Amino acid sequence: MSTSTLGTSVPQVTARAKVLGRAQYAGDIQIPGMLHGKVLRSPYPHARIVSIDTSAALALPGVKAVLTGADGPRVCWGTHHKERRILAEGVVRFAGEEVAAVAAVTEEIARDALDLIQVEYEELPALLTTEQALADGAPGIHPGRDNVSHEIRFARGDVDAAFAQAHLVHEQAYSTHAQYPGYMEPMATVARMDPDGRLQVWTSTQSAFLARARIASVLELPVSQVRVIQATTGGGFGGKIIEDANNLIASLLALRTGQPVRLVNNRLEDFVAACTSVPERITLKLGMDRQGRIVAKDVRILADCGAYSGLSAEVMHVSAMRSDNMHRLQHVRSHATLVYTYTPPHGAFRGFGGTQMLFALNSHIDTMARKLDLDPLEVHRINAIERGETSVHGWQVGSTGLQECLSQCTDAIGWKAKRGKPGHGSKRRGVGIAAAMHVSGNRTIGDWDGSTVVVKLNEDGRAFVHCAEADMGQGAMTMLAQLVAHELTLPLEHVHVVQPDTDSAPFAIGSLASRVTIVAGNAALVAARAARDKLVAQAARLLEVAESELELADGAVRVRAEPKRKRGIAELARTHIWRHGGEAIQVSGTWDAKTTMFDKQNLMGNIAPAYSFAAQAVEVEVDTETGQVTLVDSFVSDDCGKALNPQAVHGQSNGAAAQAIGWTLYEHLQLEDGRIANGNFADYTMPTPDALPMLRSGIVESNDPNGPYGAKGASETAILPGPAAIANAVFDAVGVRITDLPITPEKVLAALREKHHA
Amino acid sequence: MSTSTLGTSVPQVTARAKVLGRAQYAGDIQIPGMLHGKVLRSPYPHARIVSIDTSAALALPGVKAVLTGADGPRVCWGTHHKERRILAEGVVRFAGEEVAAVAAVTEEIARDALDLIQVEYEELPALLTTEQALADGAPGIHPGRDNVSHEIRFARGDVDAAFAQAHLVHEQAYSTHAQYPGYMEPMATVARMDPDGRLQVWTSTQSAFLARARIASVLELPVSQVRVIQATTGGGFGGKIIEDANNLIASLLALRTGQPVRLVNNRLEDFVAACTSVPERITLKLGMDRQGRIVAKDVRILADCGAYSGLSAEVMHVSAMRSDNMHRLQHVRSHATLVYTYTPPHGAFRGFGGTQMLFALNSHIDTMARKLDLDPLEVHRINAIERGETSVHGWQVGSTGLQECLSQCTDAIGWKAKRGKPGHGSKRRGVGIAAAMHVSGNRTIGDWDGSTVVVKLNEDGRAFVHCAEADMGQGAMTMLAQLVAHELTLPLEHVHVVQPDTDSAPFAIGSLASRVTIVAGNAALVAARAARDKLVAQAARLLEVAESELELADGAVRVRAEPKRKRGIAELARTHIWRHGGEAIQVSGTWDAKTTMFDKQNLMGNIAPAYSFAAQAVEVEVDTETGQVTLVDSFVSDDCGKALNPQAVHGQSNGAAAQAIGWTLYEHLQLEDGRIANGNFADYTMPTPDALPMLRSGIVESNDPNGPYGAKGASETAILPGPAAIANAVFDAVGVRITDLPITPEKVLAALREKHHA
Repeated sequence: MSTSTLGTSVPQVTARAKVLGRAQYAGDIQIPGMLHGKVLRSPYPHARIVSIDTSAALALPGVKAVLTGADGPRVCWGTHHKERRILAEGVVRFAGEEVAAVAAVTEEIARDALDLIQVEYEELPALLTTEQALADGAPGIHPGRDNVSHEIRFARGDVDAAFAQAHLVHEQAYSTHAQYPGYMEPMATVARMDPDGRLQVWTSTQSAFLARARIASVLELPVSQVRVIQATTGGGFGGKIIEDANNLIASLLALRTGQPVRLVNNRLEDFVAACTSVPERITLKLGMDRQGRIVAKDVRILADCGAYSGLSAEVMHVSAMRSDNMHRLQHVRSHATLVYTYTPPHGAFRGFGGTQMLFALNSHIDTMARKLDLDPLEVHRINAIERGETSVHGWQVGSTGLQECLSQCTDAIGWKAKRGKPGHGSKRRGVGIAAAMHVSGNRTIGDWDGSTVVVKLNEDGRAFVHCAEADMGQGAMTMLAQLVAHELTLPLEHVHVVQPDTDSAPFAIGSLASRVTIVAGNAALVAARAARDKLVAQAARLLEVAESELELADGAVRVRAEPKRKRGIAELARTHIWRHGGEAIQVSGTWDAKTTMFDKQNLMGNIAPAYSFAAQAVEVEVDTETGQVTLVDSFVSDDCGKALNPQAVHGQSNGAAAQAIGWTLYEHLQLEDGRIANGNFADYTMPTPDALPMLRSGIVESNDPNGPYGAKGASETAILPGPAAIANAVFDAVGVRITDLPITPEKVLAALREKHHA
Repeated sequence: MSTSTLGTSVPQVTARAKVLGRAQYAGDIQIPGMLHGKVLRSPYPHARIVSIDTSAALALPGVKAVLTGADGPRVCWGTHHKERRILAEGVVRFAGEEVAAVAAVTEEIARDALDLIQVEYEELPALLTTEQALADGAPGIHPGRDNVSHEIRFARGDVDAAFAQAHLVHEQAYSTHAQYPGYMEPMATVARMDPDGRLQVWTSTQSAFLARARIASVLELPVSQVRVIQATTGGGFGGKIIEDANNLIASLLALRTGQPVRLVNNRLEDFVAACTSVPERITLKLGMDRQGRIVAKDVRILADCGAYSGLSAEVMHVSAMRSDNMHRLQHVRSHATLVYTYTPPHGAFRGFGGTQMLFALNSHIDTMARKLDLDPLEVHRINAIERGETSVHGWQVGSTGLQECLSQCTDAIGWKAKRGKPGHGSKRRGVGIAAAMHVSGNRTIGDWDGSTVVVKLNEDGRAFVHCAEADMGQGAMTMLAQLVAHELTLPLEHVHVVQPDTDSAPFAIGSLASRVTIVAGNAALVAARAARDKLVAQAARLLEVAESELELADGAVRVRAEPKRKRGIAELARTHIWRHGGEAIQVSGTWDAKTTMFDKQNLMGNIAPAYSFAAQAVEVEVDTETGQVTLVDSFVSDDCGKALNPQAVHGQSNGAAAQAIGWTLYEHLQLEDGRIANGNFADYTMPTPDALPMLRSGIVESNDPNGPYGAKGASETAILPGPAAIANAVFDAVGVRITDLPITPEKVLAALREKHHA
């Protein structure tokens, strides 16, 4: 009787609380005396703050604090550059920048108080595009610096020579736009001073410890004086890693008022406050041989980080380098430039820069395959890096299921039968494919890419798991529970994963870079096996049998040769305490990837313990009269190494596919004079179910040698191939190549018109 | 520059939050939707519950639940015997027994609802005294059993032969009464179902883990489904170990209503609900040689546990045995009987049964010394067990400061000058002394007397300490912080001791048997030193120096021979994470006393890692016209091994002395027909400051080899000698011997009258 759920579909351990409405999101937390925060934001993309008069706001009954940049703190935050203030002082650099924060006894009063804050601005000229920002003589958006926030250049091999020898060279520019993360739960925080005068923060986050570090740094507190508890988190998609000011402002208000403060973005506020994905203009030049092998690659990227760099530099790094590792390349060159503009900041987003580049690369491969009269599928196959190979940037591929992903999704969609058969009439059909690669973990975060898990066995034989990697809906807690339950032969419901709390949980980096399954999963194995060893040792004492003759099975430790001689886990856990020299079983397991530190000089090194792959095939219908592109079918295949919980992988894959489709066809954040013009779900049109076909997904298990039971990060990869697959399918249907996302009916119609006129 | 506070007086780490009114006691916790509980109690000491009609109460708007015994659960609780129900069913056995519990939206409605519960009782005859309960043919208070709850008998050596050879034999009966713990904070709990459907309980307790175990057991939940968080606890004195039903009832109401429930005893309720100390009638017979050596001892105890045994059996064990170990004895015999009566249950109380017996023993020694014309001080000295000796019950005395305690307190009080000089007129003065012994830890709790402490070092070089031993005001958290700070050379304020939480803290037994300083203190040393070793290892990596050449000092690890080559703790903690194979420093330390399991058959064994001693000398003034005894001076000397925080030891010693004085002279819980008649602070007269002299206390440091830096349990011992010291002083003043506590003016006057008539 095995109780293990490993590899089987189970509902997430957090599902019941969520479905019953009991899960406590940060916004659900109520504390007596709690104030409500509101933020006043700049209406101008660039302006001098001449004066701020808060007296009328402060005089409003119920208002407890009105803070401006002049009230401090003056410590700046930001990942790559510390350049952003909690509250602006002197100057605002984007429409939406935080200018003042109010705490009041009700949300209504706080909102009313915002209207009473008198800010006098002197509006200044705003550089709204990268072109403007890079123009000769353009003034620096940040004092004493030019408008290049970050730059990456590298060249490997002899790129020019390789291009000269190529059979086919193709160059094309692609442009990608910002996407709003669109999580169900907007950013939310409740902060208070605890009885000991420490700052306690419940927040919606992808990393309690990164949040603690940032809050402490900006508020000039030792980290030990800050406690961050990850509240139930309703989605993150990269937007809740470290770039939102929500928990900083709530913390500041709590610190200054001494009262609990709740700050929950409404959707409009969240659109303005959230970092959206980095818009990139990518100029891609590939050289291929006659068989479609990529023999040379040249990449130029112009990326816009907005007014503050945030994580955009790291995102651009990924755009510039990651896709190179998917192929067997020798001659590659890249030049990427991140530029400040007076626009709302961009940053991390599911896929982390991979999406932008893989739109370009997969579009390019499709185009060149057609030019070479090759099946793009075969071009993907011939270029794909294989297991055991080391990429041009030093990445060691321990497993890859890319070939199988390509087969699986193309078989599923009917690639061979449907390709190149658009049909007749005004509604044409086409199919498209694309391939993708992602990391599972990333040592470039700092010279550690590990995780620590504590397993605690209670006297009833059930386990608690402490780990501060975040579950933001993706299923991290379920994964940990499954692994610990499996190792200890416990029913899944006998493992309780405790909400991350920086006071008690072991230090962790958090949920980003698809790292949690591989690093925390492995740490869970280490911890659970250490707990198992203690159970076995205790059974050896009770049964007076050598440990080597014992095994843990079916909830008991038994004599291997005499399976009926056994002791149950509850008895073992209890008697492990109640004996001479006893103690409760509470063990810690740490795992750190045996990867190499990224060489910053040469941009070289095996940065992740494993790499995930995905491929997607789609079928579209294009209405040639309206330009409307409708997705008819989509199948995304995800190589997650091993699906610990297939249902969760499918859920994530389909969610990722939907988000990719949204970005490709529907979602377009409109800036008008630097201001977000459609920051609401009526005008910012995320795909609703009627806009999507029944999304399909498949799992490929390449069994990574470094993964827990072979598992790698699942399904962040699945957002990557969709956009190009759709663009390629549109080309297959109507012969027009859209290189400028999103693929709107207007662009399709314009391209069709141009094609007919050509 | 040493920052260590070890051995110096520091304010408790909890003081600031308490003084500022910020500390969160259970009763301070407010949760949205929280209901308020109230308990209906039996007005009769013994009755059959004929019927309970809750319909009117349930119909009262705002009432959410009215539970009776018929609603279950039917699992019984109790330490020695599982015999007590959360809510009585069928029969009530004491006036005050819980009959029904209400949860309502306000406390007022809950109180009103109690009045609407219609209970029909058939009053039954009540056995209110041990004599009645033991009378032939007395019906069993618990079905199928006689009224002896527990019995202890032992004899060592040849007691009769020893008495036959004694120079002086004296026998006397003493009687002691129940004392209400009188903590500042009555029992209080808030319980709720958490989002995952687990029961979460904030309660005022001396042991979060014992509370969890009992709640889980009685509510028939796995312990893992229960989370107990010790709220700030305003005193315990034994009353909050495990015997109060408050957190059981709050938990039951939360479980049944699905809503948070607050149940806070008001003072009247607490008097009825709390277990008071065990009243014992002790018949003591001692044989002495001519020099005052005790050559034979015979003890008979008749103890009253009330309607349920609770911890009374364990208390009686202590009365029957512990004081034997203070002396060099060979021939001792004891017969102790614990008897049920239809009265409110008794149980644990500071001193845990020692107080009762030491009143008898010290009174007895004074009487016999006088008969032998010896200074009682010399009789104490000649009998006192010495370091390195093993007592008649197998206790191994690793340290004793009793002789020094005796010298210190008698010197302080002016014993030699004042003794036997009552003066003239109606106000006579006398001095008295008494000696005491206590345990520091106790293996009889279960075959483990250890503790586990987790030390977590943060990136700012500050430490968190997790330990579930309770601070109920005595200073456990400060002790832990001092030890960890000392080991890691941190300022005290850089160590934060986290509130006990059964989800995250390591398993612990809790605060009882004066065990926390020795067991948790030692565990803290183990953990802190393990953390130190990790700091040293990291410094060895950074400095490229062998660990053996390094030392931790003044907040840094330095090269011993080159003290300026060093790395600060913050840097070491941070870089211990951020490196290949890194992890945060979070280490666990366990220490278990190397004592022997009490042999239950022979009642023999070295049950504690150390034993504490105390002596007290007092001066009283007796008004021969009114019988009023006034304490003029008191000096209690406590052998705590090593005073880690002298101010805390003095505070505890003086508090213990005050509680002893209250019991001896003032506090008398009155039962009228089995009902508590003076359950309030107006009528139950705890000593107010005007009733006390400036209490004085002294510390004796006997440096126990098993203690952390020599420390033993501090100051529970200090409650033990006071009562006899006062009785002896009264005799010294006016020549009357009060053997029946409390020493009221009426008893003194009556004794004086009797003496004059004799």
